[in-house]
Amino acid sequence: MAEGSAKSDCIVGVDLGGTKILSGVFNHSLECVGTAKLSTKSQRGVDKVVERIGRCVQDAIDEADLTIKQIAGVGIGAPGAVDFSSGTVIFAPNMEGWKEVPLKKELEKFLGVPVFVENDCNISSLGVYVAELKSKPRSMVGIFVGTGIGGGLIINGDLYSGANHTAGEIGHMVLEVSGPKCGCGNKGCFEALASRTAIFQQIKAGIKDGQKTILTEMLGNDLEDLRSGDLRKAIRRGDKFVDRIIESASEYIGIATANLINILNPEVVVLGGGVIEALADEMMSVITETAKDYAMPGTMKGVEIIPSKLGDNAGITGAAVLARKETK
Amino acid sequence: MAEGSAKSDCIVGVDLGGTKILSGVFNHSLECVGTAKLSTKSQRGVDKVVERIGRCVQDAIDEADLTIKQIAGVGIGAPGAVDFSSGTVIFAPNMEGWKEVPLKKELEKFLGVPVFVENDCNISSLGVYVAELKSKPRSMVGIFVGTGIGGGLIINGDLYSGANHTAGEIGHMVLEVSGPKCGCGNKGCFEALASRTAIFQQIKAGIKDGQKTILTEMLGNDLEDLRSGDLRKAIRRGDKFVDRIIESASEYIGIATANLINILNPEVVVLGGGVIEALADEMMSVITETAKDYAMPGTMKGVEIIPSKLGDNAGITGAAVLARKETK
Repeated sequence: MAEGSAKSDCIVGVDLGGTKILSGVFNHSLECVGTAKLSTKSQRGVDKVVERIGRCVQDAIDEADLTIKQIAGVGIGAPGAVDFSSGTVIFAPNMEGWKEVPLKKELEKFLGVPVFVENDCNISSLGVYVAELKSKPRSMVGIFVGTGIGGGLIINGDLYSGANHTAGEIGHMVLEVSGPKCGCGNKGCFEALASRTAIFQQIKAGIKDGQKTILTEMLGNDLEDLRSGDLRKAIRRGDKFVDRIIESASEYIGIATANLINILNPEVVVLGGGVIEALADEMMSVITETAKDYAMPGTMKGVEIIPSKLGDNAGITGAAVLARKETK
Repeated sequence: MAEGSAKSDCIVGVDLGGTKILSGVFNHSLECVGTAKLSTKSQRGVDKVVERIGRCVQDAIDEADLTIKQIAGVGIGAPGAVDFSSGTVIFAPNMEGWKEVPLKKELEKFLGVPVFVENDCNISSLGVYVAELKSKPRSMVGIFVGTGIGGGLIINGDLYSGANHTAGEIGHMVLEVSGPKCGCGNKGCFEALASRTAIFQQIKAGIKDGQKTILTEMLGNDLEDLRSGDLRKAIRRGDKFVDRIIESASEYIGIATANLINILNPEVVVLGGGVIEALADEMMSVITETAKDYAMPGTMKGVEIIPSKLGDNAGITGAAVLARKETK
């Protein structure tokens, strides 16, 4: 048995994503003592995904040399709108058929332990706040740039999730009313300007228009299997086209950061997600400078803008923190 | 002496604006028992304005048949960034020379009672919350559309003013990166698209371009002394040009409202300020419909969007609430 973990003293945190499920077992000191990973396979239908989440939890517990009886609860971050009290996923846009899914109820039946469900970006913000920020600021905004863009708010030292647990939907903050169309149906959302999806679309459109890029040498003309890390490699090899697109995305992230600083005046803004993880060195200085340009005088005083180092672990850590809090 | 007011039981609330100073004396039941109003005359310099604030407080006390000895404290809402703990106005863009003004210290010397200074829109939000919203929601966003645009946040039942007391600077949320220039130096801020200043500029530019409007019949070609109420009169007389401009401003206010709902998921959004006060019947339905279009599914559930009925009194009421809280 992992050191420091006693009976029912451990917690499992799950990060449910559109492509993969991550789970981690955490001991009472919030150390991760075992992880597991499964592909989501949302095309197989809701029931199969719920079963896969359950299996991923069991795998992590097994990995940590524990049994389900030693687990006090399971926290889950789900990619969409969540009704926390019932543990229902109201709507998850990147998961096939996920509307009004009683995830808490189904998983509790499957696992036999208490389950708690929150929005994934809220959860990740909580994870960053608890596990990464030693100074424990009173207020923090988390901005997660990946396939989509989401956020989470810590206010007065606590996760703030609003009236319907949907606070932090910063990806659909409009930055450019006449901008590109977003998956949500509106135009010019932050997510339509600076997410990985938006960046990849801009790159593919540029290539169609005859732009030259090392990416086609690296991956072929159709850019199959393009990942954020490839953009970093291209920029470091001097690819001006990719550099310009990443600079533009960074500027939009900086403007969104300034909007959030103007609105919320937090002590700390943390940037995370796959795009930031892969391109922090290329993006952070542009993000910070742009945010300073757009924030009102006085609002930026003492405000830190930093990249998260937790990477993929932010979600499972936050989910564990949530479950710990709820089972105490 | 006003009924219900005992020794040191009353509070004065002050709303300091770029053009006028309002003050009101409130008894222990938060009833307004006397008011006063002076022009600001900020061109006369900071010291003279501070003196005028002091006089305006004295006038309201006199109006209520009280003396300063019966006043427990004075709250002030100032139009800019404020350091609450020192009571310093860090910067007030619409007041000549207002940088680092120790307003609390100077007024306490002048009046001999404790003085508390906050941002005016924060204060107005607090006023609306305490005096107008009987249901006492956990969270509220106040949006005040006047000469400029400001906001205030109530979170978990309390005024939330952020790390530097600058939270709620929603007027400088960028909605249109390539939009019109804002007084702050950036482009496409909410304030540059939908404030009274922006609306009047659009009207004047339209007239220059040959647009016909009843406003020139009403006020002459230079539109001297144009007020928000004139826009209402013009629309009610069938002025299509003014109607279109107000509709466009309402749409931007709706988009900003949706952004704030997506970010903060409050229970209630309250719209106030001179423009809304004058044009609520013309603007509110467009604002609400646009906000519904732009808010993410699930975030709007149960969220109310309402116009404030407090009008000019929101500021003095909130300032009194603040001073009451601080002197208790």
